[in-house]
Amino acid sequence: MRPQIVLFGDSITQQSFGSAGWGAALADAYCRKADVLLRGYGGYNTRWALFLLHHIFPLDNSNPPVATTIFFGANDAALFGRTSERQHVPVEEYGDNLKIMRLSPTMLVVLITPPPVDEDGRMEYAKSLYGEKAMKLPERTNEMTGVYARQCIETAKDLGVPFIDLWSKMQETEGWQKKFLSDGLHLTEEGNAVVHKEVVEVFSVAGLSSEEMPYDFPHHSQIDAKNPEKTFQQQQCLARPL
Amino acid sequence: MRPQIVLFGDSITQQSFGSAGWGAALADAYCRKADVLLRGYGGYNTRWALFLLHHIFPLDNSNPPVATTIFFGANDAALFGRTSERQHVPVEEYGDNLKIMRLSPTMLVVLITPPPVDEDGRMEYAKSLYGEKAMKLPERTNEMTGVYARQCIETAKDLGVPFIDLWSKMQETEGWQKKFLSDGLHLTEEGNAVVHKEVVEVFSVAGLSSEEMPYDFPHHSQIDAKNPEKTFQQQQCLARPL
Repeated sequence: MRPQIVLFGDSITQQSFGSAGWGAALADAYCRKADVLLRGYGGYNTRWALFLLHHIFPLDNSNPPVATTIFFGANDAALFGRTSERQHVPVEEYGDNLKIMRLSPTMLVVLITPPPVDEDGRMEYAKSLYGEKAMKLPERTNEMTGVYARQCIETAKDLGVPFIDLWSKMQETEGWQKKFLSDGLHLTEEGNAVVHKEVVEVFSVAGLSSEEMPYDFPHHSQIDAKNPEKTFQQQQCLARPL
Repeated sequence: MRPQIVLFGDSITQQSFGSAGWGAALADAYCRKADVLLRGYGGYNTRWALFLLHHIFPLDNSNPPVATTIFFGANDAALFGRTSERQHVPVEEYGDNLKIMRLSPTMLVVLITPPPVDEDGRMEYAKSLYGEKAMKLPERTNEMTGVYARQCIETAKDLGVPFIDLWSKMQETEGWQKKFLSDGLHLTEEGNAVVHKEVVEVFSVAGLSSEEMPYDFPHHSQIDAKNPEKTFQQQQCLARPL
């Protein structure tokens, strides 16, 4: 069985196999070594995601994933009393829910904070969709999302698992608002590249570097063309099914 | 268990999660509905791929894939007596091998012919790598690859399974040589888009349209925010694991 890497999160995970997406880039980097399974649920907060937890990670799984990214918070941080308040989850509950999501100490769990929010970008996006009927106040603020990001980091430290402080990381770059975010919240191609780079780095530090993982089957240049049975027998592959 | 779609093939499959790749686009199209598993083996011909067959499709799998693309031939068609002759497989054996790969009548199998070959592109690519030491004659010709493409189509007809005649399809477009192929053999972003479109179409005709498949879990807008248990119980999800 090939190792599995699960990407569990909200729309920023769900969209990660789109154009230049960070999930697809990860699947490409781990091709012939691990399967990258997409478990992104647009609009979900951690409260709702908990209902899916044991479906995605069955307790009786004899072959659990080797690693999982847990990437929530963008919806939990939606402000109470604004247009997305139904998605709001109090910050303490957000931290508690993340703790529940770390199901097994043998599976590498990487917590990723929500990205920063470009409030102007959110307003522009709403206006492009709804015109004059658009919200007058942003439904998320960068400041409040930062509170959730810090909660995510604190939780990771409590659990002793690695984390990616995407909220801070992205804001280190001048013009992050448009460079990394397409609508003030979701990722541009360059934003996807940041997430990809960070995930690859954390996985490598944790001993899951793609370069160091074996190919599932021999590289074609290693196959004895005159006697391929020999190559595949050595690699414990089945004999040719004829 | 979520349905699985397997992409089985050579480098053109292996690279399909790269930039704007057809495999990643498929995973994106089927997100929250099916898992797209990458089983691409660069350099492999059908003779070598048979050794992997029962590893990738175990006979005792209680949850076999719903669909599989089988996309070989580009290496089988490498010319005998040229630089890639070790990959060459006679065309009759290529057809026989494809037949063996159709393991189950309940799994949708789609045979894809190799893409056309741009011989000039191959030569230019070799020269860019090896300079004056590059091969003087192309290791593949478009004509010979066409023979394999026809064999693939005949095999699909014999088996009664759908096929994609990529060899012919691509050559319908003026300038296919550079538009669809990056090195005379592998796909550009536009070439990837052709494969993606064709696969989506064949899957749809066969009743595997992404639009008609159900989401694995409720869309976030359908969740009762005041009483999420209700929504997830209706969807036969597990109660909250607290």
